[in-house]
Amino acid sequence: MTNTPKFDLSRQAARSLDSADELRHFRNEFFVPEPDLIYMDGNSLGRMPVRSAGRLEEIVRQEWGARLIRSWGEGWYDTPVRIGEKIARLVGADSGQVIVSDSTSVNLFKLVLSALALRPDRSKIVTDNFNFPSDLYILQGCVRLLGGRRALRVVPSQDRVQPDLAALYAAIDEDTALVTLSHVAFKSGYMYDAAAIARRAHAAGALVLWDLSHSAGSVPVDLDAWESDLAIGCTYKYLNGGPGAPAFLYVRQSLQNEAFSPIWGWFGNAVPFKFDLEYAPAPGIRRFLIGTPPILSMLAIEPGVDLLLEVGLDRLRRKSIALTSYLIDLFDACLAPLGFELGSPRQADRRGSHVSIRHPEGYRINRALIEEMNVLPDFREPDNIRLGLAPLYTSFEDVYEAVDRIRRAVVETRYLHFPQSRLSIT
Amino acid sequence: MTNTPKFDLSRQAARSLDSADELRHFRNEFFVPEPDLIYMDGNSLGRMPVRSAGRLEEIVRQEWGARLIRSWGEGWYDTPVRIGEKIARLVGADSGQVIVSDSTSVNLFKLVLSALALRPDRSKIVTDNFNFPSDLYILQGCVRLLGGRRALRVVPSQDRVQPDLAALYAAIDEDTALVTLSHVAFKSGYMYDAAAIARRAHAAGALVLWDLSHSAGSVPVDLDAWESDLAIGCTYKYLNGGPGAPAFLYVRQSLQNEAFSPIWGWFGNAVPFKFDLEYAPAPGIRRFLIGTPPILSMLAIEPGVDLLLEVGLDRLRRKSIALTSYLIDLFDACLAPLGFELGSPRQADRRGSHVSIRHPEGYRINRALIEEMNVLPDFREPDNIRLGLAPLYTSFEDVYEAVDRIRRAVVETRYLHFPQSRLSIT
Repeated sequence: MTNTPKFDLSRQAARSLDSADELRHFRNEFFVPEPDLIYMDGNSLGRMPVRSAGRLEEIVRQEWGARLIRSWGEGWYDTPVRIGEKIARLVGADSGQVIVSDSTSVNLFKLVLSALALRPDRSKIVTDNFNFPSDLYILQGCVRLLGGRRALRVVPSQDRVQPDLAALYAAIDEDTALVTLSHVAFKSGYMYDAAAIARRAHAAGALVLWDLSHSAGSVPVDLDAWESDLAIGCTYKYLNGGPGAPAFLYVRQSLQNEAFSPIWGWFGNAVPFKFDLEYAPAPGIRRFLIGTPPILSMLAIEPGVDLLLEVGLDRLRRKSIALTSYLIDLFDACLAPLGFELGSPRQADRRGSHVSIRHPEGYRINRALIEEMNVLPDFREPDNIRLGLAPLYTSFEDVYEAVDRIRRAVVETRYLHFPQSRLSIT
Repeated sequence: MTNTPKFDLSRQAARSLDSADELRHFRNEFFVPEPDLIYMDGNSLGRMPVRSAGRLEEIVRQEWGARLIRSWGEGWYDTPVRIGEKIARLVGADSGQVIVSDSTSVNLFKLVLSALALRPDRSKIVTDNFNFPSDLYILQGCVRLLGGRRALRVVPSQDRVQPDLAALYAAIDEDTALVTLSHVAFKSGYMYDAAAIARRAHAAGALVLWDLSHSAGSVPVDLDAWESDLAIGCTYKYLNGGPGAPAFLYVRQSLQNEAFSPIWGWFGNAVPFKFDLEYAPAPGIRRFLIGTPPILSMLAIEPGVDLLLEVGLDRLRRKSIALTSYLIDLFDACLAPLGFELGSPRQADRRGSHVSIRHPEGYRINRALIEEMNVLPDFREPDNIRLGLAPLYTSFEDVYEAVDRIRRAVVETRYLHFPQSRLSIT
């Protein structure tokens, strides 16, 4: 199945789209030292905001170097909450429900164990095979830690683009404590109807937890309106927070006084600097903090989040859909005839901001792109090339150029020397 | 009880000690923008190594900004192990036993649950009230999480300088799974005989876990020789790794194949980039990694660790003992007559690198020092002023000046307007 293209597919047309792009000046907010590099991996590590470099220099020399320990009282201490409040506005959460803390995996661990403690008589965690493997590992570890009193159900989908929603709904029952999914699936960019999933989970008495790692800063997220219970997400992808920047977590206001972290950290204590010998969880969302946060990496998140707040999610989503739709038109015209298969939904309202294209020689093509063609996509075994389109800085001409270089990697014989697959080597 | 002073207590003598100090040129390796500031809080946040500022600029602009996702294959991925191997040399650990990961609190959580799983039939965790409150919180949380199958025994000491070792030894019995202590106690600087504690714990069949947060980079640590099982530690104090920099952990080689983290993270998976749906712990120490590490904060650790490796722990310890002994001589001469009480051991081989001085008006004195006298000590309720002496950059004249300003805070009436205690206000 292919589209009738909506876009003119000439390079000139790509340039016209860029000229008409209402977000085009935001590209100047990012460090782009290598203009020929086609960066399609903003879904793994977002580009560096220019402001972040200046801010980090100030943090290092002025805050750490000169003010030293005094900086804790001059802004550092409130960082997890202050940046959390900003991220809250990107994910549709009212004040007091989001903090920045730890890694995505540690946050998932905290919230899964919190959720299970809130549903002590239910045994099942429901997820699917479109979830991040890293999330599945955490869930498996939680089940193991709780010693067989809980079980993990990973609903499979045979389809490579869409989860099996019927099977997922059927798996949610009166014995389900928690339903946890990745809102935009890493492998295909499929985007769930989060409100519908929450209704189904709540009807069965289960809680729902979203991983927003591929959503925050790229698609509209409306945690409160969806009636979400819990959420986690990453800041180094579309939020452009820097490599391995600390993650965020959300706990619905009405759960906060009954839920608590299984890891009782001093930053989550009611009065952290009193140093009482007995832990007492802080009121509200702060109780989900653990240890002293890594300030350099955490403060580096703020400039990227500020940029997204300036843009606003409506404009962001509009450009994201235009970019992915344009890419799919180019795909149909240039890549489908070369044996590529589209690995992402054609329906824009079920699609995030990355597009998956599959090819039997995907591994070879990916190596050629990276090593000789100055394109950085993302690759997942066995055949999945993912193209991340970050609306803040990806241009239409980037997309045009990416597709053209991918085409050349297939049709030009000089790229045939790259190996077929990493798996066949190991 | 006071000493006969070993040191000449004139300012000129302090300057002579600095001239003769074999480590004096290392002070130039640190950013010291405010020469009049007497920084006595290196036990909370170490000063910034000059190299760290340069390195961070390179990481931000070149590695994140220009190389982007490629940097993961060009050094980032190995960071937790590479820096861990360097820290290993500071704490007497052979290769393959130390990694950098998460916060001190999260690492304690991981290792405590690992230890308890290795001693399934024993119910007790033994610690004492000289341990960090933050560690006690984690232990309380672990006991709660495991649902009453385990208990925490916090051995009290009525003494403010020394733990009650007899009571501690008596508490370690055949039902003890784990003994965990802070090697250098935050409140007094008391340093345990770690080898003796390990012998006692092992004789009872228990494991031993050290918190090295106030030890690493300030006193000799010999984890392997002490027959330690597990250890954790902080990098932002005497290692000068930057605010909230990620922590380290140690697992004895022979335990690594049976122990595993309760938090199953993808960085600890056997083949992280294969993205299998089933977790399999990596062989060796890597299995204790969890999520994507905060690269900016983690790489900032390396320059400070490199400096310590250049100095070597013997020279470091020699200067540390000279500094604390000199401080105690000054204390006896100038501060004891003003109503101060020494809160640290007089015996150098039982003392870490900070000295605690107590005064009924400690809170007021501390506020005067910070707000009007340009001294930054560390204060703990109700009366404990802690002076951290970092041998890499603290000078003898710093110590002289600190004591002189503390004396003036007491004897000069212009500092009497500061409040007596924070506690009486709240």
